[in-house]
Parts: sequence; structure tokens; C-alpha cells
Amino acid sequence: MKPKDKCGVFAFASRDLNAAFRIKEGLYALQHRGQESAGISVFHENEIVLYKNFGLVQKVFDGNTLNKLKGFIGIGHVRYSTQGEKNAYDNIQPIYGYCKGRHLALVHNGNLTNTLKLKTVLIKSGKMLKGTGDSEVILHLYSQYLDMPVAERIKKLMSILKGAYSVIILDMDTLIGFRDPLGYRPLWIGRNGQSIGLSSEEGGLVASGLKPFREVMPGEVVIIENYGLKSTRLKKIRRTKQCIFELIYFSRPDGHIFGQSVYDFRKKSGILLGEKDKTPIDIVVAVPDSGTIAAIGYAQTRGLPLELGFIRNHYTGRSFIEPGNRKDKVRKKLIPVGDVVHGKKVALIDDSIVRGTTSREIIRLMRESGAREVHLRIASPPVRFPCYFGIDIPTRDELVASGISQEDVAKKLEADSVLYIEENELLFVMDKHFSDKFCTACFDGKYE
Amino acid sequence: MKPKDKCGVFAFASRDLNAAFRIKEGLYALQHRGQESAGISVFHENEIVLYKNFGLVQKVFDGNTLNKLKGFIGIGHVRYSTQGEKNAYDNIQPIYGYCKGRHLALVHNGNLTNTLKLKTVLIKSGKMLKGTGDSEVILHLYSQYLDMPVAERIKKLMSILKGAYSVIILDMDTLIGFRDPLGYRPLWIGRNGQSIGLSSEEGGLVASGLKPFREVMPGEVVIIENYGLKSTRLKKIRRTKQCIFELIYFSRPDGHIFGQSVYDFRKKSGILLGEKDKTPIDIVVAVPDSGTIAAIGYAQTRGLPLELGFIRNHYTGRSFIEPGNRKDKVRKKLIPVGDVVHGKKVALIDDSIVRGTTSREIIRLMRESGAREVHLRIASPPVRFPCYFGIDIPTRDELVASGISQEDVAKKLEADSVLYIEENELLFVMDKHFSDKFCTACFDGKYE
Amino acid sequence: MKPKDKCGVFAFASRDLNAAFRIKEGLYALQHRGQESAGISVFHENEIVLYKNFGLVQKVFDGNTLNKLKGFIGIGHVRYSTQGEKNAYDNIQPIYGYCKGRHLALVHNGNLTNTLKLKTVLIKSGKMLKGTGDSEVILHLYSQYLDMPVAERIKKLMSILKGAYSVIILDMDTLIGFRDPLGYRPLWIGRNGQSIGLSSEEGGLVASGLKPFREVMPGEVVIIENYGLKSTRLKKIRRTKQCIFELIYFSRPDGHIFGQSVYDFRKKSGILLGEKDKTPIDIVVAVPDSGTIAAIGYAQTRGLPLELGFIRNHYTGRSFIEPGNRKDKVRKKLIPVGDVVHGKKVALIDDSIVRGTTSREIIRLMRESGAREVHLRIASPPVRFPCYFGIDIPTRDELVASGISQEDVAKKLEADSVLYIEENELLFVMDKHFSDKFCTACFDGKYE
Amino acid sequence: MKPKDKCGVFAFASRDLNAAFRIKEGLYALQHRGQESAGISVFHENEIVLYKNFGLVQKVFDGNTLNKLKGFIGIGHVRYSTQGEKNAYDNIQPIYGYCKGRHLALVHNGNLTNTLKLKTVLIKSGKMLKGTGDSEVILHLYSQYLDMPVAERIKKLMSILKGAYSVIILDMDTLIGFRDPLGYRPLWIGRNGQSIGLSSEEGGLVASGLKPFREVMPGEVVIIENYGLKSTRLKKIRRTKQCIFELIYFSRPDGHIFGQSVYDFRKKSGILLGEKDKTPIDIVVAVPDSGTIAAIGYAQTRGLPLELGFIRNHYTGRSFIEPGNRKDKVRKKLIPVGDVVHGKKVALIDDSIVRGTTSREIIRLMRESGAREVHLRIASPPVRFPCYFGIDIPTRDELVASGISQEDVAKKLEADSVLYIEENELLFVMDKHFSDKFCTACFDGKYE
Repeated sequence: MKPKDKCGVFAFASRDLNAAFRIKEGLYALQHRGQESAGISVFHENEIVLYKNFGLVQKVFDGNTLNKLKGFIGIGHVRYSTQGEKNAYDNIQPIYGYCKGRHLALVHNGNLTNTLKLKTVLIKSGKMLKGTGDSEVILHLYSQYLDMPVAERIKKLMSILKGAYSVIILDMDTLIGFRDPLGYRPLWIGRNGQSIGLSSEEGGLVASGLKPFREVMPGEVVIIENYGLKSTRLKKIRRTKQCIFELIYFSRPDGHIFGQSVYDFRKKSGILLGEKDKTPIDIVVAVPDSGTIAAIGYAQTRGLPLELGFIRNHYTGRSFIEPGNRKDKVRKKLIPVGDVVHGKKVALIDDSIVRGTTSREIIRLMRESGAREVHLRIASPPVRFPCYFGIDIPTRDELVASGISQEDVAKKLEADSVLYIEENELLFVMDKHFSDKFCTACFDGKYE
Repeated sequence: MKPKDKCGVFAFASRDLNAAFRIKEGLYALQHRGQESAGISVFHENEIVLYKNFGLVQKVFDGNTLNKLKGFIGIGHVRYSTQGEKNAYDNIQPIYGYCKGRHLALVHNGNLTNTLKLKTVLIKSGKMLKGTGDSEVILHLYSQYLDMPVAERIKKLMSILKGAYSVIILDMDTLIGFRDPLGYRPLWIGRNGQSIGLSSEEGGLVASGLKPFREVMPGEVVIIENYGLKSTRLKKIRRTKQCIFELIYFSRPDGHIFGQSVYDFRKKSGILLGEKDKTPIDIVVAVPDSGTIAAIGYAQTRGLPLELGFIRNHYTGRSFIEPGNRKDKVRKKLIPVGDVVHGKKVALIDDSIVRGTTSREIIRLMRESGAREVHLRIASPPVRFPCYFGIDIPTRDELVASGISQEDVAKKLEADSVLYIEENELLFVMDKHFSDKFCTACFDGKYE
Repeated sequence: MKPKDKCGVFAFASRDLNAAFRIKEGLYALQHRGQESAGISVFHENEIVLYKNFGLVQKVFDGNTLNKLKGFIGIGHVRYSTQGEKNAYDNIQPIYGYCKGRHLALVHNGNLTNTLKLKTVLIKSGKMLKGTGDSEVILHLYSQYLDMPVAERIKKLMSILKGAYSVIILDMDTLIGFRDPLGYRPLWIGRNGQSIGLSSEEGGLVASGLKPFREVMPGEVVIIENYGLKSTRLKKIRRTKQCIFELIYFSRPDGHIFGQSVYDFRKKSGILLGEKDKTPIDIVVAVPDSGTIAAIGYAQTRGLPLELGFIRNHYTGRSFIEPGNRKDKVRKKLIPVGDVVHGKKVALIDDSIVRGTTSREIIRLMRESGAREVHLRIASPPVRFPCYFGIDIPTRDELVASGISQEDVAKKLEADSVLYIEENELLFVMDKHFSDKFCTACFDGKYE
Repeated sequence: MKPKDKCGVFAFASRDLNAAFRIKEGLYALQHRGQESAGISVFHENEIVLYKNFGLVQKVFDGNTLNKLKGFIGIGHVRYSTQGEKNAYDNIQPIYGYCKGRHLALVHNGNLTNTLKLKTVLIKSGKMLKGTGDSEVILHLYSQYLDMPVAERIKKLMSILKGAYSVIILDMDTLIGFRDPLGYRPLWIGRNGQSIGLSSEEGGLVASGLKPFREVMPGEVVIIENYGLKSTRLKKIRRTKQCIFELIYFSRPDGHIFGQSVYDFRKKSGILLGEKDKTPIDIVVAVPDSGTIAAIGYAQTRGLPLELGFIRNHYTGRSFIEPGNRKDKVRKKLIPVGDVVHGKKVALIDDSIVRGTTSREIIRLMRESGAREVHLRIASPPVRFPCYFGIDIPTRDELVASGISQEDVAKKLEADSVLYIEENELLFVMDKHFSDKFCTACFDGKYE
């Protein structure tokens, strides 16, 4: 079970009324960032029209729905929410608000860490909150600064909000995108002729027909108006806190995040892992699909054959309620190839390790298929601490590597051995100043 | 096409955690008041949990959904909205808000007439509105008075709100129900042992296992707390404005509204119509089902045979998109019985007349089936003015009887003659002081 | 719980390729004859194309499906099947077969009584059966006579088949419709210009744009070919066995069945009942909708006021799984009007009585609503025997009136009294030779 | 666009009544062999109960449906059908028949080549066919030999049927599985304690809790009765015609087909391709997922780095109607990784080439992502002839490699070069007698 991101954000402005169709394409390419609900808001004839519902992008936005969402400009969102969330319906984004004569809509990726305090202030000042999430709080605060110039509003917001926020606001016919000064979550700008867009990842831009231009910088605000883009770096902090898990797992490997090629990062992680590893190995097997790129790097470095030790069942789906527990689910999704692993010393490569429950099941599958030895290789440091910035990581008790030795983890997971990348080795994967740029709190607990 | 009401409201408090199941039963019995969306909020473990969506009650609330809505106390709503409404999703009720440490939810039947002004005040004071409707405005205003005693809050509300509002607020574990001082829309109280409920109509109470107790009075607030009910008449106005269309068409005929038996009202209307009518008639035919009770009264008074001149197709449904226009829809829904009407002078009885398009099609059907004469008899005055209090009545241009004589209406509708009840004759149907009690603005345009 | 018919059949031939659209309209008007599944076959470009599935007509046949069913000529079917039927999927009609170079499809209303014997013969001759029903047997036998002239084939069939069968066969581009010599089940012919159709009831013809022409006679075959209709009376039997329940309950009251006006029959039954009844009564109440027409006749005859003692909930539907037992279902569907029945001696009129369980619940509802006395009046003889000709009637043990006196029935149903029409009185409703024309086996057990 | 197989078959017999649950698991693992419809028949209490419908296995068989299919023994089927097939509904398998007192059901993978002739014979002998497919024909013929001992029946069938057929018949409580003497399509036997099963592939057996035992041989029949398995080799032919496309593409790579490891076959094909190829290449990229195993072999042989040049979108689904043409679909499904391919000479590996339209689009994607050269490498001979044995291959005109040189194919596909395995080289992949065992008609047109 991989940690879950909470969302993907997208915006599009063009010269024709079909912004919603392009936003849908963008959201569809960001679907991996959130599969629970989807929503689009467009501005048209002095109003904001909104449609959102539970379900995948393709299901929520059929042709009929999109045709009703006419407009030159708009925003969209895909969302994952923790199981059992109360009032999930009211937390589906975009969040809409009408305030001081202005129609507003907002999408947010990330997690505030001072939500409770901000809510208390808002509540004290007589505001009413309609959902249980933190994104609505941002919209409320924004609405209080509507008298200021646009950039000032965001500057003010940045002085108040703590935590992670890549946000896009649709304020009537203006798009305002910004990242928190520590830059936890990503945000990209794309262009093509007079069309402009914003997207959590490059993939969304490409899917909607735009060309990736550059990332919004931490602490930067970009304002899209009259087909033009203005930008101000509101706050510049020497040491940013960009989420390293975007590189390790979340982002699609065809893109770049925080100035890094995602593919390169993952491959280099595998190379580093391979360089460290002296265990005799016959074949290298990736946990599909998350471990594939690291496995490529690992195998190339050690000169070992990479083999397809698992095939993935493409019919396990979100749309059907699957019977059975996690163990059953792993076994339905991953099918070991006996001919490949039988009698072999296997290096099993995955991108990261959190709970370890899936890993243990996969290791068992390898053994049942005849593997002689199974050595688990993780292309990142083990997750030992929860995340407060927008990733759904379980509590410390549930984290397999929290507080125990590598050997004990191997025992727990029934592996012959376990090897991670240590946090201090990450500088070999990235540049040496990586610790000034990335948040690694889930590895080391250093939240500040 | 009948005018549409905008909703039904319901509340239930008991000693077990299954309030949501009872609320569902209540809403199902109020389904005729709104078929577009349904929602339920319950209070449990210091929180309000809410589920709402588009669709009929039976579809929105299946067993799984209800099981997640545990709680002793809660409210529910069924809603109809005008075609093409923007952001319909955000207007589905109950409306939820969190304010000053209190979880609140609200359901509303009716229509404010000073919404714009109230919104402007709220917006000026920095509030943000999440939907486009007026019900949210009431919740915002309510939240401003949370420091006052409960009854005072509602008193304050009544001094500010103009228009029609039967409202139930779920304020943590307290239910607060009230009707506007003019009493436009109905609200009933029901009890059974320690269970208490509120409902737009008696039918909802009976369906949920309660016994109808009495109506909430215009300007009265009832507070349900700790299985007890307290009541205060906050404002008493000599001349109320209770909506006469509840008696004519909206309410289920098995109940009582505004102190009147709905059945008696409709039958007496038919009797009055019969007493006035001297046209030679062979048989009396009701437009099913709205004209049936008036037709019974009319036929009994004139000593004429009532016959089933139309049968109704029970498979025309909301759930399927029906091809074709209104004309086709009338013909699919109503099937004339040729053997009954052939060669006959027919008195065709309906409860009311608005646009007249359906009536004309029905008259044509009668003639095609061989009726010798078709005399349209309407058991109420013709609707000549729009309604601003929660009923979806078209503009004056579309109202068939607006500004033309009875003869011209007959010509337009292709009837041999048309006869209504005149407004000044209604006193024969009800008591003579009816004009002090009922809103008849849709007949006479007297909105004040 | 009313007895259930097993189906409705329909056929249409015209000069354009949209026969399937017209057949859908026809089936939709016959939906009351079967709600479980629907199917249409059309002949086009030397093939028969078929679509059928579980569900109501409007759901099974959306626009896309109809567009794929191009053809000048075709047949359709709506079906009800007994709960728990095995292999229901293979019994959905039309039944298709390819035999001796000919594409065939068949729809059937009725029930054979020598199915087992016929199956044995077929099986012996090496035939294979694909479903469990009797309709497939007819198609198999038909296919054995393909070398004979068309009328001869049907003549041969009539000499072999026993029981009830109104059948339409689509044999390539020819439609063949016939009724069994005893004429158990109905079949109508309709025309309009060069369009011709067949339908279980007139209503289907009207809905598809045809004008009812005449009924197919018992033992008659009609052959529709090249836009022309040929007919032969293959077998004429002096005493036919047309199903009296079509008049009592099944058929839509706007039509004619077996040369009788359905409306007249039902009204006359009510009149007869009224003439017999000397019990002091205050008001007459119909069980909606089945008892309405009889109640009109009863009330007119006795000069008693007919009142709407029950309203019917239009949202109880087939599409949703309703929780609860029969008692709950009755109470959800029928809502008593207390103001009407309170303190009154009520004559409660229904068209027929089978199990009596629904009647008892309705009588209880009347009493709970304050009725002083409830006298059940049934506008037909009580059902005392099962039906073998296509109607789903329970076994004798479950039939309330089987083998006990009228007084005991009243006691069982908790009624103050019960009154039926006796079988020998039916001649007052119809003509005096009725017993030569109608099957009354469910009343008297005389199956021959 | 890959060629499509027509189906997967499965059977299960055990000591408890849950055979249907196990069959569902088996079918789910065979889903890649047919996604259009699914069906299960079980024998219970002297009857065969059947459920089948359009849709994926998980959708057609929810818990309710399975609970109705009680039985110790049964068969199942997944099916793909060519677009636009007439009467698709009647062709969904299992095919059911009742004949000479026996309930029969049949599932079939493959395609008869003398269907027309057999149908003519059946039709002449007065049989009626209910669907348009060939599987029903087998059941009809089988039913004619019911008097013979079981093995004789199948022997007789084998003397009459021509073409490809792996068949399982459920004849009351007996399972009969057999493969045609040329062995075109696969069939596996599995066991576990007293449970026995048959499945198109090993994967189905494993998923249902069985252990793969051995393959049914060409011309062999296995009879499962009373928890025991009897087998007879009815016909032994020196040169079999097992479908080489099962190894190249259809079968899941975790299993064995026709005595070969699928994984080994595909890897060896890649190795052979690598050994032949002298073109200078920088990186090896597989077309996911079909080309992956060959790419592994190719890259290992040439000592070249295998890279993930494409990622696959897991949200493109069968359940939603995707807008756009093939080009759009390729681009939605396959996302190129620019950082990997930019400036590189790419060897693009796929398992086979049919139409070439997808390949051309993929090559374009590579170039747009900056690849310097794109060399298409196909791990099998090009498909130049249609298949008559159960695979959906287009006509010769549509086959890109039909009748033109390798150079012209490269030009058509916009590749820098194209290289296949020649048919005479396949002996290096398999054993040298492969041409005595496999059907390669789609490569060389030698159907006999």
C-alpha cells in the first residue's frame, strides 16, 4: 500500500469557450494524484459554474456535463480522501465562494499545518465554514484581502498560512497560482500560443495541448489575465522544503519536478543502491510499476539481468468492489512468473517502504514461486515518520522501519536481507545541497 | 405542467441511533414536493454527518449510506430546482456550516424576497457565500446570533428575513423549527412516545411512525431538545399569508394544511364549481390525478355521472429520459377512454390552470376520442401572476388567463367553454375570513 | 397482490426502416402485461437482428439500441416471469431460430398445457431445447412444417398445441399472427395507410400510430406480407375459452377485448354488485386503480357518494429494491384519507380477490383511519382454482375463498362483510351466452 | 491494435456447492482472453442453472448472482466478439441445451472452419439454430451421439469438426474437456485434493486454488466424474497445429502453453532478434506491456541498456467510452519519457506486427520526444495472412507487411529501420521440429 497524495490541480485559459474540455484532459493525466472525486469550475458571463462529484475524471465529466461548462477560463481538481472522512461531499474541490461581489473558486494541493488556529480565528470573526477541510480556510482568508492588489493578497496569505499549499484561485476572469514559500508541492506553467495553463505536473499540460514552460517557484505567485502572465516572487527562502516523495513515488516519471528529472532521480537511486549492494544476486525483479526505474538502474550498475518476475493484472479496478483483504488484493494484482524466479537469488526492487505489509506478501509470492533467496532493495530511505504536508502516511506504530534495525525489518518482512538508501546518501542521487531544498521529514522527523 | 414547489423538510429525534432511517421514510412520503435531490444530516459524537446527492430518495439513500449516518437526531430535505440552475450541486440541502465551535445544518422550504439585500449585507460584512440560493443566507444570519438564547436568535431572524420560510435547523443536538410570521409554507409537529419530528406535511410524520400532533403556527418557533419540545409564538400577525396552492395542488390530500382538510377544500371547490355551472353536461371527467377530488364534488352536486375518461400510464418516469415534447409527454401519460367520452358532453375538471398548454392537449385528446363537447372546469381562480414565495410559476406572458376573458381562454384552449372559481367566491369554499389568512397573490397580484 | 399475466406481444410492418421505434412505442403501451424483460427482433438484409434484456421497455431500448435495429418489419415482447425461474436469461423473448435456410423469431402470450409431452416428442426426435419455457417448443414445431404453405403450417400447429397461445412469428419478411382455437389470449390487428401491426391490446396499436382494425379471431391466422394482410379461420369452435380475467383485470380499460368494451364490462360488474347489495353504506371507496371503474358503477347504481378513500404513492417503483414485507409495501403504496372514511360505513370495491392478503391490509388501513364499518365488494367471482393458461395464480391453499363460505372469508379478511358476483350472475354483466365464450376455470375449476 | 482472441474456457468440480465462486476466480484470471461477456453454468439438483451477460467478469458476477449459482460442478467462459456481430446476445457462452432428458452446457475456444457445411447438415436434418456462432453447432452434434459412451461421442465429433476447438461440455454432473486433434488452442488440467478443473491457461487454475497438472493433449478427451478424471487420446496426429500466437502474444507470460514456457519463448525471441541486429543502438525501449519480455532478451544479448521509454496510463479503460480515434487512444495510453529517449538511437521492441497503425503512432511519439533514430524490432515474423482458427486478424489489405519489403514497411511506419524474426529462424527460438507442432498460417498462409 503506497502512501496517497491528496490531489492534483489544474487551470486553463484560452480564446475559445472550451476550457472545460482542456481541463478535463489535464485532470485525466493527473488522475494518479487522486481517484476519489473530480471537479471543474469555469467563469462565464460574469458567473462561475461548477460541477464536481465522486468518481474518476472520465466518469464525472461526460460530454453532456462538459457542454454545460462553457467558458474561456477555469480550474479543476482531482482528489483522494482518507477513508471514512466525514462530509466528504462538501470537501470535493473546487471550493466555490461568492464574496464582495466577486465569484471565487479555489483548488489546493497540500496540507496546512495551522488549520485549527486559522479556523479558530475565522470562527471568532464570525465566519462560517461549510466543509471540514483546510482548503476552504484559504479561500476565506483570501476573500478578506479582496481590496488589496492581487499580489498583495497572496503575500498576505503567505504570511499567515503554514504548511504545504500549491493553490490556484479563479477570481472572476483571473487565474492566480502560487506555491508556499517552502515549496512543498509542485506547480507547473504551460503555454501554447495564447493558451496558458497551470498543472501539478507537466503531464497535465501536455495532455491539454500546452507546452511545459517552467515551474512556479516556491513563494512565487503567477497571475493570468487577458491572456498574459505576470509573476512575482513574493517570498524567497534559502532552504526550501520540496517534497522528496514527489520524486520517489508520486509524480509521473515522464516529467520534471523541482528542477529534477523524475526518471533520472529514480534511476540514480537504483544505481546508488546497486553500488552499495554486494550480496550475490542472480536476477533483478521490480515491484511493478513503482520499482521499475530503480530496478533498471540497479541492474545496469551491477551488470545483472533484469527480469519480469511479476506481471500485473490490468483488470483489478477501482470501479468494482473487490472481495477479500489486502493479501488477496496483492495476489490478484501481482502474478509471479515461476519460470523466471525459480531457484534464483532475487533482488526485489521497490521505490519506497512504508507499512511493509504489501512487501511481505510479495516476498512470500516470490518464495512460493521457487525463489531461492529474496533480497528486498528499497530505492529510498525507509519512511519512519508521518507527514503533515499532504501525504497520507500511517502513524509511527504502523511504519515497519520505525525504530528497528535493518535486520529486524528483514525478519518481519520474511526477506533474506533488506537494503535501503540511507538519508545521508541521497546527496549522491541529487546534488549535494539537496538537504537545503527538500523536505525529508518522513525519513528523519525534522519537520522544520 | 403544474407549478412546482421547491421542497419538503423533515426532522426526527428519538432514543435510538436510527434517526436517518426514519428521516428517509419521512422524505419518501414528501417526495412529491421535490424530486431532484435529497439529503440527510445527523448529529453524532459531537459532529454533524451529511449525505446528499441528486436523485430520488430511494436512490440517494440505500442501506449502505443510511448505515453510515448514525445518530439520534437529524434533518432531511427533498428539493426541486429550476432547470439550468447554476451550481446546483452546492444548493442541495441540508446546508452545513461550522461556526463558533458549533456544527449547524439547515433545511428550508420557501423563498426569501429580500435575498439580494441580505446577501449584500453579508458580503459587506466579509462573509462568503458558497451557493447561489437563499437558504445559506438564513444559516449565515442565524450563526451571527449564536450568543443569544435560542428563541431570541429566531426572533432576530424573523425581524430581518422577508418572504416565505419554513425552516428546521440542526444546531448540534438541538432541533429548531419555525415558520415565517405570515406562515407562507406549512410545518407539522408529530410525536410518538419519546420520538418527536417535524415535517412539511402530516404524511411524512405518519410514514416515519409518528402521530401528527399540530401545525407549527405562523411566527412560532419550536425547540426540540432532550426529547422535549418547547414552543414560543415569536410574532403574531392578524392577517397571515398562507399559500393557498398548498390546498389547491401541492399537499397530499390525506392531510391537513393551515387548519384545513385538504380533501374537504378540494371537494368543496368542486361543489362550488358545480353549483355555479348550468351548462348541460353528460359526464364528468377528472384530469388525473390532480382534478379527481374536485370532480367528485362537482359530480355529486350536479347529480352527474363521474367517469374515468382518462387512465394514467404508471410507467412514465423521472428516471428515464423521455423523447419528445410536452405534447408527446401528455399523450404518453394520459390515455383517453373512447367508450366513455364518445358522443358525450364532457365536463373536464382540473384543480388549477397556469400555462394551459397541457389543458389544450387534453381537450384535443377528448375530442379525438369522440367527445361532442368539452367544457373545462377549474376548481380555483386562474393563476395570473408569478409567485415570489417558493413556487415555480412562469412569467405573466406565459400564463394563459393573464389579461384575457374567459371566452378567449376557451378559444385558446379549444374548449367549448371554460369556467373557474372566482377569487371572491373562495369564501364559499373556506370560511369567510379566508382573505385574512391566505396568500392569493398568484390570482390577484396583491403581494402585500 | 394481483395475478400476473405472462406477457404482451407486438408486431409492426411499414415502408420505412424504423419499425423498431414503433415496436418500442407499442411495447411501452403494453408494459402493464410484463415488466421483467423486453425484446425486439427486426428483419433486415436477409437476417434477423435481435436485442433483448431484463428491464422495463424504456430502459432496455434507448436510442442507441434502437438505431442498431434497422428494418421494415419486426416483432416485440414484454415479459413477466415467476420469481426464481431458472435460466430466465434464455427465456426472454423473442425466441430466435435459424432453420432450413430461414431466420425465424417468435413471441408468445399464453401457456401450453401439453408442453411436457411436446418436449418429449421433440427430444425424442433429437431436437435440442435452449430454454425451459414453452414458447421455444412452438418455434421448433413450426420449423418442422416449413415446407407446407404458411396457413397449413399453422393449421398443423393448432392440431398439436394444447392450451393458450396468441403468437406472432417473424419468418424472414413475413409476419404470421394467430390465436389458439379456444382464443384464450387476445390479439388485435391495426392499420394506418400501408403500415400494419398486431398487438395484444388496442393500446399498443394506438401508441405506435396505428388504428385498431379488428381482433384476430380464435383459430384464425393472419399473414402480413408485402404490405398486405391475408387471413384464414383455420379452426372454428362453437364454445371458445377466452380469458375472463383480461376483462376483469389485465387489459387496459381504454380498449376492447373479445368483442367487449373493457370499461363497460367493469362498470356493469360494479352496477350488478350495487344492485345486489342491500347493506347500508355511507361512502364508496375504490382500491386504486384496479377497483375504480367497478366502484363508479356501484356508486351510481346505489346513488351513493364515491370518495377517494386512498391515494396512491407514485414513487413506489420497480427500479428500486424496496425494504420490508408485503404489509409494508401496501402501506407505502396506498395512503388512506382519514377525513373521508372517518366514522363512515365504507363499501370498499376491488375488481377481484385472490390471496386476500392485500385486501386484509387495506381493510386494516381503513379501520385505523376511523372507518366505522368496512364492507368488501368484489366485482367478480372469487378465484378458487389455479390457472394453466398463462396467469400466475397461486395454489388452492393460498386462495382465500377456496372452499370456505363468504362469512368465513369476511372473518379472515377482518371485513364486516364480503360480497362477490357469483359466476352465474356474470350473464347479467355480459350476454347470456357468456359461458360459451369465456374461460372461467379459475372460478369453477372447469378447465375443459 | 493487437489481434484479439475469441475466448477463455474454465471448469471446476469439487465437494462443496461453491463451484461458481471458484469459476469466477478462474475466469477473472482469463479476462485478457475476452472482455465482452462472461457466463457461468452450474449443475445442481438435476438441472443446469446459467447466468451470462455482457461485461467484465467482476461486473457480471457480483455476490448476489454467484449465490444463486449453487452447485458442485460447472463451467464458465469469457468472450470477445467482433464489432457489430448480429445477435451477440444469443452467442454469449455457455451455450445451454436440453436434449434426450439431459441438460447440457458448452463452452468453446476456437473457430470451426466447416461451420457452414455443418450448419447445412443440421438444418437439413431439421435442427434449429438459436445463435449465429459455431459453438452451438458442436453442442447440436454432441447431442446426436448421446446414446454412445462418452469417449465415443467425442471421437465422433472429432471426425466431423474441422478447425480449432478446445471445448468443455457440462453434461449433467459430468465434465468433458477436449482439444481438436491439431491442438490449435490450449487447455490445461488442474487438481488440488478432490477438486479438479480445466482452464485455457494455468493462470486460471492457480487463481481458483488448483495446481496446474498437465495440458490436455491434442486429440485427447478428459472426463471428470465422481471426483475422478479419465482420459483417452482419441486421435494422434504426427504434425499438430498449435497456435503460435498463444506464445507470441495471447497467453499470460507466467504460464506454459503447448509444453513451452511462455516467458522463455518471448525472451528467446528477443535474444534471437538481438543476435541478428547489428544496427548501432543507444537504448532499448519496449512497447508496454506486450514487448517487455522480448526487450529484456534483446537488451541482455546486445549488452544495451533497457530503459522505460513509455509509461502506460492505467486509467484508460474499457468501462468508459473514450472520445477520439486510434491515434488519440494510443496517445492517451502511452506516454513517452522524453528524458530517456532524447537524442538517442532507440531500438523499439514489440512482440508482433499486424496493421502497423499503432506502431507508426508510437514511432511518431518517440520522435516528438526527441529520439534521434527509431528502429522497430519485432520479436516474431510479420502477420501476412488472416487466421481462420479463432483469432481476429484483419484482411490482407490491412496487414502492413503483406507483400512488401522490410524497407517499405519501415517507410510506411516512419521507422529508420524494421527488423523481424523470419519464420525459418523460429527454430532457433523453439526446438527444430517446431514446424511439426505449430500453426504458422498467419505468417505463411499454409493453412493445411
